[in-house]
Amino acid sequence: MDLKLIEGFLDEYLNVHGFTDTSTNGLQVEGSHDVEKIAFAVDASMQSFTYALECEAEMLVVHHGIIWNGVDRITGLLKERLKFLLENELSLYAAHIPLDAHPEIGNNAMILRYIGVEPEDRFGDYKGTKIGYAGYANSEFEEILEILEDRFGEVGYMKFGDDYVEKIAVVSGRGAGYIEEAKKEGVDLLITGEIEHSAYHTAKDCAMNIIYLGHYNSETPGVKALMNIAGDKLGVEVEFLDIPTDL
Amino acid sequence: MDLKLIEGFLDEYLNVHGFTDTSTNGLQVEGSHDVEKIAFAVDASMQSFTYALECEAEMLVVHHGIIWNGVDRITGLLKERLKFLLENELSLYAAHIPLDAHPEIGNNAMILRYIGVEPEDRFGDYKGTKIGYAGYANSEFEEILEILEDRFGEVGYMKFGDDYVEKIAVVSGRGAGYIEEAKKEGVDLLITGEIEHSAYHTAKDCAMNIIYLGHYNSETPGVKALMNIAGDKLGVEVEFLDIPTDL
Amino acid sequence: MDLKLIEGFLDEYLNVHGFTDTSTNGLQVEGSHDVEKIAFAVDASMQSFTYALECEAEMLVVHHGIIWNGVDRITGLLKERLKFLLENELSLYAAHIPLDAHPEIGNNAMILRYIGVEPEDRFGDYKGTKIGYAGYANSEFEEILEILEDRFGEVGYMKFGDDYVEKIAVVSGRGAGYIEEAKKEGVDLLITGEIEHSAYHTAKDCAMNIIYLGHYNSETPGVKALMNIAGDKLGVEVEFLDIPTDL
Amino acid sequence: MDLKLIEGFLDEYLNVHGFTDTSTNGLQVEGSHDVEKIAFAVDASMQSFTYALECEAEMLVVHHGIIWNGVDRITGLLKERLKFLLENELSLYAAHIPLDAHPEIGNNAMILRYIGVEPEDRFGDYKGTKIGYAGYANSEFEEILEILEDRFGEVGYMKFGDDYVEKIAVVSGRGAGYIEEAKKEGVDLLITGEIEHSAYHTAKDCAMNIIYLGHYNSETPGVKALMNIAGDKLGVEVEFLDIPTDL
Amino acid sequence: MDLKLIEGFLDEYLNVHGFTDTSTNGLQVEGSHDVEKIAFAVDASMQSFTYALECEAEMLVVHHGIIWNGVDRITGLLKERLKFLLENELSLYAAHIPLDAHPEIGNNAMILRYIGVEPEDRFGDYKGTKIGYAGYANSEFEEILEILEDRFGEVGYMKFGDDYVEKIAVVSGRGAGYIEEAKKEGVDLLITGEIEHSAYHTAKDCAMNIIYLGHYNSETPGVKALMNIAGDKLGVEVEFLDIPTDL
Amino acid sequence: MDLKLIEGFLDEYLNVHGFTDTSTNGLQVEGSHDVEKIAFAVDASMQSFTYALECEAEMLVVHHGIIWNGVDRITGLLKERLKFLLENELSLYAAHIPLDAHPEIGNNAMILRYIGVEPEDRFGDYKGTKIGYAGYANSEFEEILEILEDRFGEVGYMKFGDDYVEKIAVVSGRGAGYIEEAKKEGVDLLITGEIEHSAYHTAKDCAMNIIYLGHYNSETPGVKALMNIAGDKLGVEVEFLDIPTDL
Repeated sequence: MDLKLIEGFLDEYLNVHGFTDTSTNGLQVEGSHDVEKIAFAVDASMQSFTYALECEAEMLVVHHGIIWNGVDRITGLLKERLKFLLENELSLYAAHIPLDAHPEIGNNAMILRYIGVEPEDRFGDYKGTKIGYAGYANSEFEEILEILEDRFGEVGYMKFGDDYVEKIAVVSGRGAGYIEEAKKEGVDLLITGEIEHSAYHTAKDCAMNIIYLGHYNSETPGVKALMNIAGDKLGVEVEFLDIPTDL
Repeated sequence: MDLKLIEGFLDEYLNVHGFTDTSTNGLQVEGSHDVEKIAFAVDASMQSFTYALECEAEMLVVHHGIIWNGVDRITGLLKERLKFLLENELSLYAAHIPLDAHPEIGNNAMILRYIGVEPEDRFGDYKGTKIGYAGYANSEFEEILEILEDRFGEVGYMKFGDDYVEKIAVVSGRGAGYIEEAKKEGVDLLITGEIEHSAYHTAKDCAMNIIYLGHYNSETPGVKALMNIAGDKLGVEVEFLDIPTDL
Repeated sequence: MDLKLIEGFLDEYLNVHGFTDTSTNGLQVEGSHDVEKIAFAVDASMQSFTYALECEAEMLVVHHGIIWNGVDRITGLLKERLKFLLENELSLYAAHIPLDAHPEIGNNAMILRYIGVEPEDRFGDYKGTKIGYAGYANSEFEEILEILEDRFGEVGYMKFGDDYVEKIAVVSGRGAGYIEEAKKEGVDLLITGEIEHSAYHTAKDCAMNIIYLGHYNSETPGVKALMNIAGDKLGVEVEFLDIPTDL
Repeated sequence: MDLKLIEGFLDEYLNVHGFTDTSTNGLQVEGSHDVEKIAFAVDASMQSFTYALECEAEMLVVHHGIIWNGVDRITGLLKERLKFLLENELSLYAAHIPLDAHPEIGNNAMILRYIGVEPEDRFGDYKGTKIGYAGYANSEFEEILEILEDRFGEVGYMKFGDDYVEKIAVVSGRGAGYIEEAKKEGVDLLITGEIEHSAYHTAKDCAMNIIYLGHYNSETPGVKALMNIAGDKLGVEVEFLDIPTDL
Repeated sequence: MDLKLIEGFLDEYLNVHGFTDTSTNGLQVEGSHDVEKIAFAVDASMQSFTYALECEAEMLVVHHGIIWNGVDRITGLLKERLKFLLENELSLYAAHIPLDAHPEIGNNAMILRYIGVEPEDRFGDYKGTKIGYAGYANSEFEEILEILEDRFGEVGYMKFGDDYVEKIAVVSGRGAGYIEEAKKEGVDLLITGEIEHSAYHTAKDCAMNIIYLGHYNSETPGVKALMNIAGDKLGVEVEFLDIPTDL
Repeated sequence: MDLKLIEGFLDEYLNVHGFTDTSTNGLQVEGSHDVEKIAFAVDASMQSFTYALECEAEMLVVHHGIIWNGVDRITGLLKERLKFLLENELSLYAAHIPLDAHPEIGNNAMILRYIGVEPEDRFGDYKGTKIGYAGYANSEFEEILEILEDRFGEVGYMKFGDDYVEKIAVVSGRGAGYIEEAKKEGVDLLITGEIEHSAYHTAKDCAMNIIYLGHYNSETPGVKALMNIAGDKLGVEVEFLDIPTDL
């Protein structure tokens, strides 16, 4: 299948040009125009590039690409990565915020549905656009924790709020900066990927519950869901490359 | 002692207005003008405010304050914190980047000296200013790890580089974004506070060694050193409030 | 009544987030959530805060608040004012441009109607939005002056244009910078609040008539009208605090 | 004398390109290159242009010119003024902030010296540069008021501070926005040109004394002093055009 | 006819305020309000001003005016040109990008129609707006070259692509910077006005065909077509001033 | 020789980081670290890349590189060029403004010296830095034209000024935008590389003489002079690749 067709489908399905983002979304590196298989991974890295090649993909779709805020020089790490991609004619396509925010297959909507909650309200302002989702449950904190551990293995949490949880918001990846917005919006539990030092006292002083799944874990749902859509709609072979970072 | 004198001393000693920073550095909240005791802590929070009051300080000096990128509204968490400070006439003074970057008592210079390395080169570009330090050792990675664990307890690391370490760079707090600069500058080991997902593949593909002490741990040295200087030079009573976040 | 309900009503009625403004519009300082009485004043000041408290209001709504272009430090005058508000749990809500520009209860529309003129055209570009109003009369300059003096007491004027006045534009407060726009739009009389030196030669060289009511006078109509609306719609007690500056 | 020589002298003497300003400082409109007489006025206007012509000047130097923030179109008032200048080959030279801030012949230094105070400290931040001056007196407020009224006629004032005045700051023209800086710097009396509504409560709540001379009055000293210097140094005929606005 | 009516007609017909441009579009210099004849030219210059006067026009409409990116000073060349216009009360109206981009009488649409191709797709991104046009032919490169030479005289070309041409894009004036966009959009032939050094290797490496008509030649079609519309709709006398630059 | 040493020498000799430029100056693409021969060319292109390889260079130094204003995507032409460079481990180093402006081996200083004129004054403001040079001759325009034609072959010119030429300014490449600055600085002849339509009337109305050597021609002197310096100082083999564009 022609790379242009795949690029066109993904650009439109993900509304790739509709978001302000530090990531260059869409086709970052152009490879072979004849694509029979697409690999999907959370992160662009020498490892995911090598795996993509090994599984005979001509294109790799990732959540975290290699071009952020534009580039000035093709040197060092970028040079090595680009050389590998170009020598092997492996295309690299990135979908960062568009894959977090997507109402159907976005990381945030997916995680909410995992715990049986319908994504009802947009949540999580990023440069003027809401990239997360919130919904309404009738659960104990412990129940939700259990469901998430069933799926993602051991997860981290800070329990500074009530046992009983009604409104739940999700911002995958690095979403610990949304505690104050969560408080303001009446959220009882914020689910995110990665925790950070600066979140501790904010959560405590806001009496907010937080569950953090790991950055990697929180962003596999969107990548996998996109893979399934792409496989179905485009009729190309697809494969998910699982390269966890434990972070 | 008059608050103005203390403010003047700290502003000058730390060159507080000489850095571009998202933190408002210097006096963030004005309290009582009569200061007999200054408390020092890494983070501004209801807990450090309360402890400061309990130990009868009229002023609290922190690395992480409560005003970042300016504020528009005194609502929510900020309102609660400000109300507490103002009702108790407790002054809040913040030194963020100036306390990382200081050549004598900065977090980065201090950590390098802990491991017996003289801070020789500036390192770690932040908005045009180098905020970290680098120096030269002749050590095994394991030796340095041991010294740091002796002092800070269990620390994390990623060992993707050589066993033998010559050039070491330190950027306290969230410094995992400096891996590529470290690679370019010939650094063998980057010491920082907090690790993050995005650092994993970068470190791996750059074959970089990283030791992370924890964000909190990595920023106590500067705060404590500043406390000692202030106590000596100003002749006021001082006290360090230890409120670790385990992050 | 819950502060959140009042805030929500005012935000929507005034379209508070629909304007680019140097003022933080909306809730500037959060006080008690239980509001039984709202005081209204043109200016935030220690005097209006004290009066608000004396008349037992839990909330003060003003045209000129205390946060402009954001704030970096809670020191000096801002510290004193905030301390007073927070200690007394008095909320402060500001509506600057939204209260000038409102088609129903805005200062400019109200002043036009005082002189029997229907606000027909938007006028007065402020950062891309028209904040004033213009309309059509068939009057002598002297007649209009008389009507305005009847209502506002002695007012100032510069009469460089014709005796007979057809098109009239109003920009309350400091609107003397709109003389050239007035000329271009065929306005015969510009009504504003405060005059300024730089307007003198512009008005003279443009042969423009100007009447200036005083900054304070020109901005009471909107505040009072908003008070009446709020009293009616919310069913809370309201009171206007008259603290003229003679400017 | 060649216009280029005069332009060069003024540019250098006033350090005309050393200030960030909304005014285009220096030669705004180029007229005849043969200059025998220079007229000086506070404001550019049809009146000062006409007077300049009547007194047979080929060049007019003003504090307030006709180009602010650049211009896009030569229409309306600007067209009329430019047409007059170009048809009569009358050059227009403007010195705005450079004439306020000048240490010798600046408005602010001059006014301080009128009341017998040496300009010691820079004061009044404008886009990063201090444009005013402060100095130290040992006077009663009333005495200073008297001296200023002797020279400038009736002047306005707000007396919210002490009777006894030590530190005095001057910012000519529209300087009422410097009250909080004055408070912070320990100023007892702020002298400016034009008062404005927004200054009233700020002055009151800061307990600051203000004397306002009128915008026009406060900016004649610099213009006249520059005239004398230019007359002396360049040996051309000079004349001051007095066109007060009573503002 | 009143200048305001003509200005209003042109502003609306050309959607003059709908484009981001370095040119001030619309009325640049205001002259006599009584217009009986309008001259049209590609460039504003002393020559086109003189010709306009000689043919007794009160208004000159051009593609390239005299105000770009605003102006700060009325000196040198600008002074001379403005003086001439103002002394002779000759109005100057400029339409730059709006005249390239217009779907009916724009330079780009007109040139496409000359070679028998209907302008179907917008092409040529300029600050976020497409200013050119593309359409579809079934021709030999040589045929198109011939048609263009018949109309414009000798034209330049670079033939790095195929003999057979299907998709053709036109960006008049300086459009040689659009080669890569042309390649990406599947264009076989790019027609523009002026060639430049930097286009040579880009065209060669993109295997793109380029025909360049001359900057002047490529921008007469829009000016003449606008003249005809203005003559018809406004009923004023019009005349085209042909002042080629051979560039 | 190690690429890092060469990069370091060129960066320092050319003060490569001392200029604001749309070009990324310095190493744009990193290739083999072992450099025995450096090729030099005016333009980066598939042709200069191929020639560099054919002459067995490991590094190519150019005036016009392939990265301008940063890049977001590695697609299309950039992908092809990068792929070629990376696959062949050919380094690309660009020096744009630094090579125009250099006092010793810069294009502008070199061209002035060709015609026997010492570069005395900096000339030609580009984003706040003067990038060209001016000097003083005592010549007829025709004499200078002859000297330049002797060296560069047929060159273009516009002779709107005097026959006798005293002050001469040079801005290589696209320097026709400096006519008004030339006029203001008393320049009698402006020498540049490429002419453009917009220069015609400006030159004519400014009565300025212009000689244009061709963009390519005007920028070979600096490239060749840099080559000689690099060969001498670094002791590596060097070769100039002559690929004229006739533009």
